Amino acid sequence: MNFLSMFKCTSNTENYRAGSTIIKEGAHGKVMYAILDGDVELRIGDKPIEVVTVGNVIGEMALIDAHPRSATAVAVTDCRLAPISEKQFLLLVQETPFFSLYVMRVLAERLRKMDAMLTAENQDGA
Amino acid sequence: MNFLSMFKCTSNTENYRAGSTIIKEGAHGKVMYAILDGDVELRIGDKPIEVVTVGNVIGEMALIDAHPRSATAVAVTDCRLAPISEKQFLLLVQETPFFSLYVMRVLAERLRKMDAMLTAENQDGA
Repeated sequence: MNFLSMFKCTSNTENYRAGSTIIKEGAHGKVMYAILDGDVELRIGDKPIEVVTVGNVIGEMALIDAHPRSATAVAVTDCRLAPISEKQFLLLVQETPFFSLYVMRVLAERLRKMDAMLTAENQDGA
Repeated sequence: MNFLSMFKCTSNTENYRAGSTIIKEGAHGKVMYAILDGDVELRIGDKPIEVVTVGNVIGEMALIDAHPRSATAVAVTDCRLAPISEKQFLLLVQETPFFSLYVMRVLAERLRKMDAMLTAENQDGA
């Protein structure tokens, strides 16, 4: 499923210029974003973690567990994003099982990337 | 919600002795487990990642993204586990939104732990 199709007709969008910060690590936030156009880099501290591309989401962690933002998100190119509020998120989870599976897959993929980074760091340090 | 309550009456359980391996990193698997009794340690390579306790789940990653197991799971104490098949997992996601939210929270919590470990390793190495 292309996640983007759920949001591509929305008029509620936000634009970010290349280089601008969309989400700041440590901040409190109650919105996630679907990327309609552009690329977004996730960073923890100064460390780039991954580039998230069109059709994917950022900022979902703060909606899931209500903790401060786990990473900073910076627009790599000019970006157009569709904000998804906590209420919308819970409605999507309730009514759209494939959305839940999609979010789980995003988290699982990020976990596998973190596992690989941690393993690589341990090998470098060995 | 106590996740355990969904499984505590099941007769389909598996027992593992302390020290035995429940899941092996890199293996293919199509089952996750709810921990009904005991503690389970997750390891990536030789590195302990976390101890998962009664009322929680292990092995969910392989059901979400069908990749090989991301970690090894070893029984710290004698354990009783309720296996959840892929079919049951998909049914739970479809019919029980709080199960989806629970799995997302498990993954988000593990991601935050990995973030913290990676940050600590970078600081140690700095």
